[in-house]
Amino acid sequence: MTAMPLTPLPRTMFEPMIRRALDEDLGLAGDVTSAAVIPPDHRSEVVASARQPGCIAGLDCAELACALVDPAITVTRHVNDGDSVSSGAPIATFQGPSRSLLIAERTALNFMGHLSGIASVTADLVRRVEGTHVSIACTRKTTPGLRALEKYAVRAGGGMNHRYSLSDAVLIKDNHIAIAGGVGPALTSAKQTVGHMIKIEIEVDTLAQLEQVLEIGADAVLLDNMTPATLREAVGMIDGRAIAEASGGITPDTVRVVAETGVDLISMGWITHSAPCLDIGLDFVSSHP
Amino acid sequence: MTAMPLTPLPRTMFEPMIRRALDEDLGLAGDVTSAAVIPPDHRSEVVASARQPGCIAGLDCAELACALVDPAITVTRHVNDGDSVSSGAPIATFQGPSRSLLIAERTALNFMGHLSGIASVTADLVRRVEGTHVSIACTRKTTPGLRALEKYAVRAGGGMNHRYSLSDAVLIKDNHIAIAGGVGPALTSAKQTVGHMIKIEIEVDTLAQLEQVLEIGADAVLLDNMTPATLREAVGMIDGRAIAEASGGITPDTVRVVAETGVDLISMGWITHSAPCLDIGLDFVSSHP
Amino acid sequence: MTAMPLTPLPRTMFEPMIRRALDEDLGLAGDVTSAAVIPPDHRSEVVASARQPGCIAGLDCAELACALVDPAITVTRHVNDGDSVSSGAPIATFQGPSRSLLIAERTALNFMGHLSGIASVTADLVRRVEGTHVSIACTRKTTPGLRALEKYAVRAGGGMNHRYSLSDAVLIKDNHIAIAGGVGPALTSAKQTVGHMIKIEIEVDTLAQLEQVLEIGADAVLLDNMTPATLREAVGMIDGRAIAEASGGITPDTVRVVAETGVDLISMGWITHSAPCLDIGLDFVSSHP
Amino acid sequence: MTAMPLTPLPRTMFEPMIRRALDEDLGLAGDVTSAAVIPPDHRSEVVASARQPGCIAGLDCAELACALVDPAITVTRHVNDGDSVSSGAPIATFQGPSRSLLIAERTALNFMGHLSGIASVTADLVRRVEGTHVSIACTRKTTPGLRALEKYAVRAGGGMNHRYSLSDAVLIKDNHIAIAGGVGPALTSAKQTVGHMIKIEIEVDTLAQLEQVLEIGADAVLLDNMTPATLREAVGMIDGRAIAEASGGITPDTVRVVAETGVDLISMGWITHSAPCLDIGLDFVSSHP
Amino acid sequence: MTAMPLTPLPRTMFEPMIRRALDEDLGLAGDVTSAAVIPPDHRSEVVASARQPGCIAGLDCAELACALVDPAITVTRHVNDGDSVSSGAPIATFQGPSRSLLIAERTALNFMGHLSGIASVTADLVRRVEGTHVSIACTRKTTPGLRALEKYAVRAGGGMNHRYSLSDAVLIKDNHIAIAGGVGPALTSAKQTVGHMIKIEIEVDTLAQLEQVLEIGADAVLLDNMTPATLREAVGMIDGRAIAEASGGITPDTVRVVAETGVDLISMGWITHSAPCLDIGLDFVSSHP
Amino acid sequence: MTAMPLTPLPRTMFEPMIRRALDEDLGLAGDVTSAAVIPPDHRSEVVASARQPGCIAGLDCAELACALVDPAITVTRHVNDGDSVSSGAPIATFQGPSRSLLIAERTALNFMGHLSGIASVTADLVRRVEGTHVSIACTRKTTPGLRALEKYAVRAGGGMNHRYSLSDAVLIKDNHIAIAGGVGPALTSAKQTVGHMIKIEIEVDTLAQLEQVLEIGADAVLLDNMTPATLREAVGMIDGRAIAEASGGITPDTVRVVAETGVDLISMGWITHSAPCLDIGLDFVSSHP
Repeated sequence: MTAMPLTPLPRTMFEPMIRRALDEDLGLAGDVTSAAVIPPDHRSEVVASARQPGCIAGLDCAELACALVDPAITVTRHVNDGDSVSSGAPIATFQGPSRSLLIAERTALNFMGHLSGIASVTADLVRRVEGTHVSIACTRKTTPGLRALEKYAVRAGGGMNHRYSLSDAVLIKDNHIAIAGGVGPALTSAKQTVGHMIKIEIEVDTLAQLEQVLEIGADAVLLDNMTPATLREAVGMIDGRAIAEASGGITPDTVRVVAETGVDLISMGWITHSAPCLDIGLDFVSSHP
Repeated sequence: MTAMPLTPLPRTMFEPMIRRALDEDLGLAGDVTSAAVIPPDHRSEVVASARQPGCIAGLDCAELACALVDPAITVTRHVNDGDSVSSGAPIATFQGPSRSLLIAERTALNFMGHLSGIASVTADLVRRVEGTHVSIACTRKTTPGLRALEKYAVRAGGGMNHRYSLSDAVLIKDNHIAIAGGVGPALTSAKQTVGHMIKIEIEVDTLAQLEQVLEIGADAVLLDNMTPATLREAVGMIDGRAIAEASGGITPDTVRVVAETGVDLISMGWITHSAPCLDIGLDFVSSHP
Repeated sequence: MTAMPLTPLPRTMFEPMIRRALDEDLGLAGDVTSAAVIPPDHRSEVVASARQPGCIAGLDCAELACALVDPAITVTRHVNDGDSVSSGAPIATFQGPSRSLLIAERTALNFMGHLSGIASVTADLVRRVEGTHVSIACTRKTTPGLRALEKYAVRAGGGMNHRYSLSDAVLIKDNHIAIAGGVGPALTSAKQTVGHMIKIEIEVDTLAQLEQVLEIGADAVLLDNMTPATLREAVGMIDGRAIAEASGGITPDTVRVVAETGVDLISMGWITHSAPCLDIGLDFVSSHP
Repeated sequence: MTAMPLTPLPRTMFEPMIRRALDEDLGLAGDVTSAAVIPPDHRSEVVASARQPGCIAGLDCAELACALVDPAITVTRHVNDGDSVSSGAPIATFQGPSRSLLIAERTALNFMGHLSGIASVTADLVRRVEGTHVSIACTRKTTPGLRALEKYAVRAGGGMNHRYSLSDAVLIKDNHIAIAGGVGPALTSAKQTVGHMIKIEIEVDTLAQLEQVLEIGADAVLLDNMTPATLREAVGMIDGRAIAEASGGITPDTVRVVAETGVDLISMGWITHSAPCLDIGLDFVSSHP
Repeated sequence: MTAMPLTPLPRTMFEPMIRRALDEDLGLAGDVTSAAVIPPDHRSEVVASARQPGCIAGLDCAELACALVDPAITVTRHVNDGDSVSSGAPIATFQGPSRSLLIAERTALNFMGHLSGIASVTADLVRRVEGTHVSIACTRKTTPGLRALEKYAVRAGGGMNHRYSLSDAVLIKDNHIAIAGGVGPALTSAKQTVGHMIKIEIEVDTLAQLEQVLEIGADAVLLDNMTPATLREAVGMIDGRAIAEASGGITPDTVRVVAETGVDLISMGWITHSAPCLDIGLDFVSSHP
Repeated sequence: MTAMPLTPLPRTMFEPMIRRALDEDLGLAGDVTSAAVIPPDHRSEVVASARQPGCIAGLDCAELACALVDPAITVTRHVNDGDSVSSGAPIATFQGPSRSLLIAERTALNFMGHLSGIASVTADLVRRVEGTHVSIACTRKTTPGLRALEKYAVRAGGGMNHRYSLSDAVLIKDNHIAIAGGVGPALTSAKQTVGHMIKIEIEVDTLAQLEQVLEIGADAVLLDNMTPATLREAVGMIDGRAIAEASGGITPDTVRVVAETGVDLISMGWITHSAPCLDIGLDFVSSHP
């Protein structure tokens, strides 16, 4: 498995998120500080740069935040989403009315920092498993309201998306299995009823369960919280008949060991719900009345 | 300064966020897994419990997520927002149709995990400065679309909110000062023009700037990236004439030292933008057809 | 393949559609006729019944339309979504203030008529292929703004949903193939890059193309506009290695012949975009001041 | 009565419908097929053409769908809304990035096909009554969420709109009459209370009722489900004192006979709720990397 | 002409307006004053009463504002919309948690004060023309975003609504006439093309224009800025063949004189755009911890 | 205290209000009058001018209303927001398709008239207190849904905004004091708990209460319904230790007397909730087919 392709999202997909973020920050009066302190005709050039190494995502969001505040702001990109940057590297230059730049700054940075944070931890994990054929994947444990962008950020970091919502793939977990009365009934019922364009994955905790799954057949198997040794055994049992996904408590420190067990996919909720923001700052390059 | 009071937010303030999160997760078909695997009349009782110690926030969100999925779900709380819990502690019990519980689960946990993560790092910092008079505060570096809830989570953790938006307080930063031509013109201009219900804070990098500020007067001074020694000197100069806020690169390890310099407030962007999710899981207590 | 399970959609998924429909119909003054003609305290009991045989879908929509107009309206269902009814069969009884019933009537019927129309043509096709193992499927050719409900209506009629959006499955069509430079490069590129939870289908116009597809492998093959004889040959070539889907110009008259070729799935855009409304009317059972 | 004029709707009236349709189709990941298969810089020219004769409506919708997906798409129209086209006639040419064209295709065609379907059945009916003075009108039996566009499509087909909502005209139907205690009290009450800018129509089932209506006076009379002979008699009784509208079970086969009775207007719900989609397809004219 | 009937608007028609008003007032933190000052369990009973005589409108809005803030608030009405009250009269009593009452207070009063202000000036004008057959009407000069409620308030005051939007009636004004090339072409064109359920009114400045109008025929004539003597003459010319509407610069002082000219309708933009708020205050009746 | 600076609001802050107003006015058919009467290609130049002297606010709203109706409309401004104009003064010239101009006219004027009305009464009050150091301020008694624009209009008139919402400042009123058990507990509780960026104001009815407040300290004191003599005494007691705000029943006739008592601020709810619309009309300068 290789990385998913990174294509820009159509603006209509994320424009409402940018507008909501601006609404939060503009309140009912707009920016009272700039209004009080900055002359109306003053113009500046500012550059956003990384304060730490990382992988960039969210340039379209930052650019749209600026455009929605003031169409007179122009943006020049020095990197693209998905690019890795070193500390201090310039990301994009913004020129325009100083008041407008100061209004858009926080919203633009909040998006870029959040999404680049996700892209960066993903890219780091991808590097750690380099040379194996493993893909790094995210889950549905995303920040409420931002899933489309966070899934995009994972792709920017070279990772792979798991299912997007409850609606586009079947993932039978331990609780489903318990209620359905075992792996067999659960998996059989799913195979008989879901649409032909929907993949079916099932979680197993033991190799005994895995054996049942393989008899019935599934597109993918989520090997939950298994030791590397057990994972290796499971991969052998699966023998290419299903995607082998490892999940549960995997960290940057353990990801390489897991990858070397031969699984196809390692999924981690924390790359979306707990990735720290990438530190990106804005510096004034020049300003003139 | 003591902690801000924690009162529940009126539902109308966060209902749109819950609906958007459910929209993301339900897609166009709803939960295809439960539909395929869980009998329609099956009912369960599940309990959400902390997998690690922390401070809880977001119970109203979790409860509303359940209610929007299915009004037949009932929720019993074992703790309240703002309570600290140990690992394994039950947080709330949910009873209802199994399919509905499985549909609401991820959205409810995504909100509770995210907000409890913020409350938990805040509560940890508050404990670290116990005995000093310092307040721990957040900034405008919040996750886009969730600011009202994240500010609430900071209050749940015992922290204090800084300004909510660009519109409700003046914060004159280095770039404003540079454009306005110095601390003097910037501060004077703000004092002359902003409304009487708006506080004014100004960032200073040096004690020389601080002296200028104190001559003109301000409600608060943001002492940016100063060493403990300089902070102590600054606090002495301010001598109660303004709120003294320390900011810039402060971590759990350094927060106590900073607090002991005598500043009134320590603000950190990372408690909202980079707090890891609190690990909260859902266990099935009983289930019956 | 059997039918997809029919589970009610959570209300939050379709409430905005009902509100929009009511907004359209209420305008800025509400119902001027009832206000002028019906006494305010007058109450009625009305029954919705089918004016022609068909399969019902949309009861939740009708009920919510009533509840949003006036929570005092009560609804008693005589059938459930997915049930087939004969001409004249009562579907549901509504009791409440006469003005409110007259306000909600058109919106409730517009939803029920539209969705039952789709369910009915689907159910008719399902009956026509009874005894074969074929599933009847819809496409993305849906009425703008109503896709989730229309896909649900297809399930109510015993049909199967194809992919829900551009985002949840790959369907490589003739134009993709032409641009990519052939079946081979297109399919290979898709297999290498899309996520492990996303199925891949490819359209073929000829058996030569089909052979290429089978060499590379795909989850499903869309056999476009082929004669029954060619379809039969294609099914033989596929031999269970992929889902065989027939599409293109299939009508109620030809669906049986196509089904008997051995394909797994027959998809038709017209069951969503051109199904005539099912004629459902409202009769006053009793009314009293 | 002649046709209502056809003027374009201001974009703000239908932009939300286009955005909702794109939201449905883009999901959380956008178009995974194009991303996987089409090179990012590839450009194409495609032409939408009618696969069957009909009357076109919805070009503004198609164009806006393209613009919202990618402002780099340019559109050249070969016909205008309201034009009749023969099978094979080119409707519009679209040029731009191939990925963007493939993303916008379905949404653009879903709008054009749906609206042109309505325009086409309307235009067909208009042609069938040519030479009489009858107008063909739609009702409030429209597809939920699309009423403004469907009413527009009826105008594009040369038809006339009936009232737009419950709020802009009085239409007293059988149930109103029954509750109000007869034609007399119902009509009198309406005339006394509704605003001076609101027209009043009343449904009659018999000539006896019609006589009562004519004594009291009304702007229009809906002659419900009458035979041609009765309609002719009714028209004679009305003698120009009110608009005479025939309604109830009228089909393309019977519309001419009804028109020749001398009524002013023939209204049919099915032209909006059951018009089949006009088959419009997209062909690639040229494409280049 | 008598007054239009006053029926409550379905909640779905005005709920978005109440939610927007609460959003404005709650900001990102809710009510910081009550949170700081009022004990969480404190309960109160408050009564809204008129500080000046007037006519009440907006009770449903006030009640919904309370319900959206806290469903635990109960409301008891002492009057209904459309009732005239004297200064000091109690309007409604609200009981519930004190914090919630204080949060909902301003939004509830802003709606009631604004709408009752419109109802009150309308009711005053209606009283001034008592004994004539004139109706008092509003126009499209309404406060942006509140038209449905303001039209309702006019009805509450005993007035009549003019057209609701550009879409539901024709009103040909001086500029239309000038562009169309005179009263004749403008009116003829309208009569030939607009739908049969749409009334046509035309503005005339002179009796010569009126004569032209009467020859062609119109549903209503707007007699713009005419003296009482000219109005009287115009009424004589019209002689019941059209609604006679006087408009332009009419005030409470002149409305009686205009009414006595025999016109059917007097319309005034200022009753919606410039009616002063009715002074309604909230008093605490009792409160207890 | 001087006036608050007037800076344009970012378009994203008021675009939804303009769209809602257009939605209200366009209905489901758009402008039926222009469609029927105005030739499609006819173009005009119209000028908006003041029919009475006043202060202008809302030009951005008017311009956006035009742009949303038809981007082909161009606007030339003759004055800016905040400018005072005499009767007859041209405000802005609009050129474009006549139909589009007639569609946008009412929405554009409704915004400009409403906001200029507020700006005008504010500017009048500001002139009346000229030479004193008093600021004229608005309150939260604003028209639902328009607060951001109305607060802006007050600034345009040279006035000052009070707090924007319940969330950005503390204002302890009589009811809070009564429930909290007096001025002392209420004020102390607020000072201990609200954030450092939030100002605290408290209402006092008597000088005895004022004395208590001054002992504890507050940012501002609202002197409610006091006579000029008492206000003067209060100002003396306060002696610069808090902002002194007079409120309650102040009119244009009494504002000067109040201002001369030495208070810093005079706040009046009526300047937003009861300001009459400024009469602005649109005249056709030229028009051509």
